[in-house]
Amino acid sequence: MSPKLNRQSRVSDIAKALGVSPTAVSFALNDKPGISTKTRERILAAIAEINWSPHYAARALSDGRTSTIGLVIARSPKAVGSEAFFMQFMTGMQAKLSQRGYGLLFQVATSLERECVIYEQWADQHRVDAVAVVDLHRDDPRPRLLKELGLKAVIAGEKSSLLPSVYIDDKVVMEQMLTHLEERGHKHVTYVAGNKQLRHVSQRAQVALKRRGPKVEVEYTDYTAEQAAAAVRKQLTGTGPTAYVFDNEALTIAGVQTLREAGAQIGRDVAVASLEDSLTCEAMSPPITAIHRDTYRFGEAVADTLLAGEETEPFDLSPRLIERDSTKTVFD
Amino acid sequence: MSPKLNRQSRVSDIAKALGVSPTAVSFALNDKPGISTKTRERILAAIAEINWSPHYAARALSDGRTSTIGLVIARSPKAVGSEAFFMQFMTGMQAKLSQRGYGLLFQVATSLERECVIYEQWADQHRVDAVAVVDLHRDDPRPRLLKELGLKAVIAGEKSSLLPSVYIDDKVVMEQMLTHLEERGHKHVTYVAGNKQLRHVSQRAQVALKRRGPKVEVEYTDYTAEQAAAAVRKQLTGTGPTAYVFDNEALTIAGVQTLREAGAQIGRDVAVASLEDSLTCEAMSPPITAIHRDTYRFGEAVADTLLAGEETEPFDLSPRLIERDSTKTVFD
Repeated sequence: MSPKLNRQSRVSDIAKALGVSPTAVSFALNDKPGISTKTRERILAAIAEINWSPHYAARALSDGRTSTIGLVIARSPKAVGSEAFFMQFMTGMQAKLSQRGYGLLFQVATSLERECVIYEQWADQHRVDAVAVVDLHRDDPRPRLLKELGLKAVIAGEKSSLLPSVYIDDKVVMEQMLTHLEERGHKHVTYVAGNKQLRHVSQRAQVALKRRGPKVEVEYTDYTAEQAAAAVRKQLTGTGPTAYVFDNEALTIAGVQTLREAGAQIGRDVAVASLEDSLTCEAMSPPITAIHRDTYRFGEAVADTLLAGEETEPFDLSPRLIERDSTKTVFD
Repeated sequence: MSPKLNRQSRVSDIAKALGVSPTAVSFALNDKPGISTKTRERILAAIAEINWSPHYAARALSDGRTSTIGLVIARSPKAVGSEAFFMQFMTGMQAKLSQRGYGLLFQVATSLERECVIYEQWADQHRVDAVAVVDLHRDDPRPRLLKELGLKAVIAGEKSSLLPSVYIDDKVVMEQMLTHLEERGHKHVTYVAGNKQLRHVSQRAQVALKRRGPKVEVEYTDYTAEQAAAAVRKQLTGTGPTAYVFDNEALTIAGVQTLREAGAQIGRDVAVASLEDSLTCEAMSPPITAIHRDTYRFGEAVADTLLAGEETEPFDLSPRLIERDSTKTVFD
């Protein structure tokens, strides 16, 4: 073979030296059909001989692949940092992606608008092969934008008519919780929810408001401790509920503190439950009844779908209610 | 200006059309000195007129910049997913990086050897501009490797003679804790530590073993609940300690459960403290005394150092002991 080839050679140099087209080299490198087995083997042997590694950026230019999956989270960085959910989700994704040599490009955005700008830049700059989209809103602009940009994407958690998704049936979560509280004799429940704009939050609220059984009031928050405390305080006036259901760990902790300050004993005077389980729910006093889900496996499933590029069936996150002392008392 | 220029133009096309060198275009794009203000303005105006965005991959080839910072964590993905520390650290980094248009490329590795292979690939493929290195080991191969690879890097948490670092004085953490326990009358303490190979763990252990005051036994673990439980059980035989200090949240929870199963009442029969504060420490019963540190700000500082490429002074993470009921009792 040509003595001119070395590790720094370009695809075009290799093609020239071997007397094949650059496309043939690219096909061999990326294990695509379209060339003969003999040509493929000759190209791969030549590459192996010079210990050649395709220059990442050159490869991105020639075949458009970056071996990178993007994830933008549009929440305040501090809020994301204290969400156990996202770290479990991201490490689940990464566990699958790294097996295929993919990295996860992670960026926080201050708003949904800013998130859209990042997608535009990424598409423009060919910076990622695909993106995972989380926290779908009602009337969300992102599926349409990503479709227009031609950026491959998977919606995590919700259905989309435009893009493949790893869809979770979130209604089950609220159904399980309300059934449990009904069985404990509760007739008036307050659901302290997250952001009203998020689809999974509005789905949960819809289930709560429609359901026969306990009467449910919904109080939306922005996931901060302040709004959780305010929501609980508002419900404490008049004939308050006998049970509180919180959307996540942070809301639960703030709610429990507010109830305690008001003199309520959790698990005896009032029941408390969380729709997201965590080490904290388990370690609190009393331990908090919660819906446990395998978020790590959800991250793995989203990564699998991104790599396969195909729609999946509704994904069973195996939500199961773990009863603890915070909802033990039977009310009547 | 030349009618041939459009959004898909290359740096060389733009340079040609404007009658300047490609280097001049690159300098203007990247806000570097070396060209006149007039030339810079002319180039930027031309680029703005065609609404030009440098093709990411092309730019990476021309000036070696990827606007990406790499972070590899060599722990089991599941363990990383339940570490509050890493999410706080990463979001702190990202908050600073995203202001400068940088993404954080995150990858988990199954071992230190595998982490080294990832660095080799990243360097080979020009995939990142720099990396943040965490969890420095004793006799760590990474600083030397990164130096050899010519990959810019910042060591997070420890000093290095080879690379810039954001150095934290970890001894203070253990000093504060032992002073507190000594003041409460403890004469025999068990330190349930993380991985012995990690430098910050061995630093803490050294402080504990050298210090006058309480006698300290050190039990190393791999951060799993199983090893935490075994370490506590081992110390329960004979004349056990009156206080336990755990390296992080996961070890603390497992240790408290083991102590409870053995019939000990936390905060009365035995004191428990954690060297890493968390929502869980605060919400547990009794609440657990812990060293609180601003991990988010640590992530910000590491990002600043990466972007500046310069060594920093020892970084003050403002560790402060938060006394809670788990160490309230005075022993004598």
